[in-house]
Amino acid sequence: MNGAELALPSIGSKKREGVSRMATTGKQLFTTLEADGTLTVALEDVAFDDPAHNQVLVRMEAAPINPSDLAILVGGADMENADYTPGKFVARMPEAANTASKARHGLKLPAGNEGAGTVIAAGESDAAQALMGQRVSCVPGNAYSQYCLADADMCLPLGAHSAEEGASAFVNPMTALGFVETARADGQNAILHTVGASNLGQMLTRICAEDGFELVNIVRKSDQVELLKGLGSEHVVNSSEDDFMDRLTDAIRATGAFYGFDPVGGGTLVDTAFRAMERVAREQMAEYSRYGSNQPKRMFIYGRLDTSPTILTPSYGFGWTLSGWLLFPFLQSIGQETMGRMRQRVRDNLTSTFASSYKSRVTLEEMLTKDAVLDYRAMRTGEKYLVTPWA
Amino acid sequence: MNGAELALPSIGSKKREGVSRMATTGKQLFTTLEADGTLTVALEDVAFDDPAHNQVLVRMEAAPINPSDLAILVGGADMENADYTPGKFVARMPEAANTASKARHGLKLPAGNEGAGTVIAAGESDAAQALMGQRVSCVPGNAYSQYCLADADMCLPLGAHSAEEGASAFVNPMTALGFVETARADGQNAILHTVGASNLGQMLTRICAEDGFELVNIVRKSDQVELLKGLGSEHVVNSSEDDFMDRLTDAIRATGAFYGFDPVGGGTLVDTAFRAMERVAREQMAEYSRYGSNQPKRMFIYGRLDTSPTILTPSYGFGWTLSGWLLFPFLQSIGQETMGRMRQRVRDNLTSTFASSYKSRVTLEEMLTKDAVLDYRAMRTGEKYLVTPWA
Repeated sequence: MNGAELALPSIGSKKREGVSRMATTGKQLFTTLEADGTLTVALEDVAFDDPAHNQVLVRMEAAPINPSDLAILVGGADMENADYTPGKFVARMPEAANTASKARHGLKLPAGNEGAGTVIAAGESDAAQALMGQRVSCVPGNAYSQYCLADADMCLPLGAHSAEEGASAFVNPMTALGFVETARADGQNAILHTVGASNLGQMLTRICAEDGFELVNIVRKSDQVELLKGLGSEHVVNSSEDDFMDRLTDAIRATGAFYGFDPVGGGTLVDTAFRAMERVAREQMAEYSRYGSNQPKRMFIYGRLDTSPTILTPSYGFGWTLSGWLLFPFLQSIGQETMGRMRQRVRDNLTSTFASSYKSRVTLEEMLTKDAVLDYRAMRTGEKYLVTPWA
Repeated sequence: MNGAELALPSIGSKKREGVSRMATTGKQLFTTLEADGTLTVALEDVAFDDPAHNQVLVRMEAAPINPSDLAILVGGADMENADYTPGKFVARMPEAANTASKARHGLKLPAGNEGAGTVIAAGESDAAQALMGQRVSCVPGNAYSQYCLADADMCLPLGAHSAEEGASAFVNPMTALGFVETARADGQNAILHTVGASNLGQMLTRICAEDGFELVNIVRKSDQVELLKGLGSEHVVNSSEDDFMDRLTDAIRATGAFYGFDPVGGGTLVDTAFRAMERVAREQMAEYSRYGSNQPKRMFIYGRLDTSPTILTPSYGFGWTLSGWLLFPFLQSIGQETMGRMRQRVRDNLTSTFASSYKSRVTLEEMLTKDAVLDYRAMRTGEKYLVTPWA
């Protein structure tokens, strides 16, 4: 199905003084964590406001469940023993996770960073009006919903692409492109990615292959090695192999990748990357230094697949930097021109370089069932869920 | 005693073809870690080369034992059960520490970053010749020695100051000034220091008071609070108090110190600083974000008083950066002019802003006795040792 085939509800797009169109109502998911650790995620019927100035109202057709959505959706809650009823679950958040989430206590929050659908109403700005009737990908922050209000400037018109093809057109593509932009701006010619076989990792692999940019991929299974080699990745190392540290060191030596990105966060993966980088740097030192090498080593944590603490051992001197990395602050920092170039590249290659694949499609109701929750919260590589609110 | 009073051995300063002056010999400390974990630290008689081009030969009179010297001197070795004989100890390095130190296995290394003494021979460069006969502070890397070869460009002429006054003129003063330079270059108006009452912390406090630069000092004892307040520090928080986290948050709110320096490294001190910074940042946010604040938070680890891993919890979003910070790479990055200005400030204020104090003075032999080792390796705040090789 493409945009032209979709029958749209006919709703006026402009607000006029004193005259309001009939309110658009639909189901939307909300997640609420109470101070006592009770997490309630439930669908509610919502009346959506008319789109203001540069907003559009999008009838949502598909929204992915990304790792970045899971924290607010289920976080560290005990989903095995949660209470599941149609359109709702109630779970217990363990003490530590609940305390860490204090800032959201009592807040009823939407969820779903991104998705795709069709614009059925638009604010009065030219950018908003230009999208009227078009299928777009968007970044509303409440994508687990039948309707969303979205910023027209952040919408990507999908042309003849399906909503499923466009549902993940923002977070992963812009993040993968953002890594290369970040590294280039910092004078790098190579990067390391600690989760090579993820949807994002595969995009990054295709981007780097297209651009001739050196990439070291870490994966956890041998079939993932084959997968990435098939996408043109030359340096894939398997952390399950006994000689992982040596192979990682070899790959860093071969590429000069002293710069990397990690979505795991917790545990020792970043530490391992720094140690391997330091091994290469020390090989190149003329004499021993008690302070380690001066080779700058830099890692970014861009997710928290593992919410346990990050462990950094004193094994690589003082020439290292570790930062958090987040898409939106990055996009705010790069300026319109770079962002426009990145978005154009995504649109031009939506079903090739930036294609996402999904294991399962679920409705809003189905995404709140035990089977679905336990499956998607496992965040297994290559097993992403897609929410289809009208299916 | 000042430089003018010191009787110098008369030794020719220039090398001539085919004619060599009589070799200067003296005791020097060496530290050797074998692959089996045996750490031997011993004095040896050494013949010192004539100073080449821009070198000077310094008869060392005083050298401090800084935390930065201890790693190579004793590291994680079992000093309680070491074998102590005159001018030597032999200790066991635990497995983990030994493995982490693999790069130095079998190497006989000098120790002692800095010290002061009198130039008794000089290479042929103008800079070296100009120092002939003067008392200087220097950074030879083998300061636990009766003689050292030092780079003339790194020597600071001490004029009438004693060797004790000049012994610590480099590492701590340049590091403390370096923190303020680093912060200023990054657009900051305030910094946090996690070990406020250390020798370096006291210098930093005086520098910030003189410059009107905001400083948050963390200390561990109530008498250290009084000490720093007496030096003009307005924001001193005691980590032993029950309300430490609240007071730290208050101090960060009052100063805007989202930028800090930490010599501890291991454990949760950096994490605590980031969490307090994030608390202040979140107070200023209009609405909740699952990703935390976008307020940039930056910490530098410039030492490893605690060699256990650095623990970073996922409690402050993605707007943070943690780096190692080391004096020499920093100095290499700032250029001659800035460095000259910093060194001039140190020289002009050696007995005020940059004064160091010492708990004990030990000879080279005494520094290798059990009593001394167990005392100085404890690195208690304000209990620094000074090595006086000719006393």
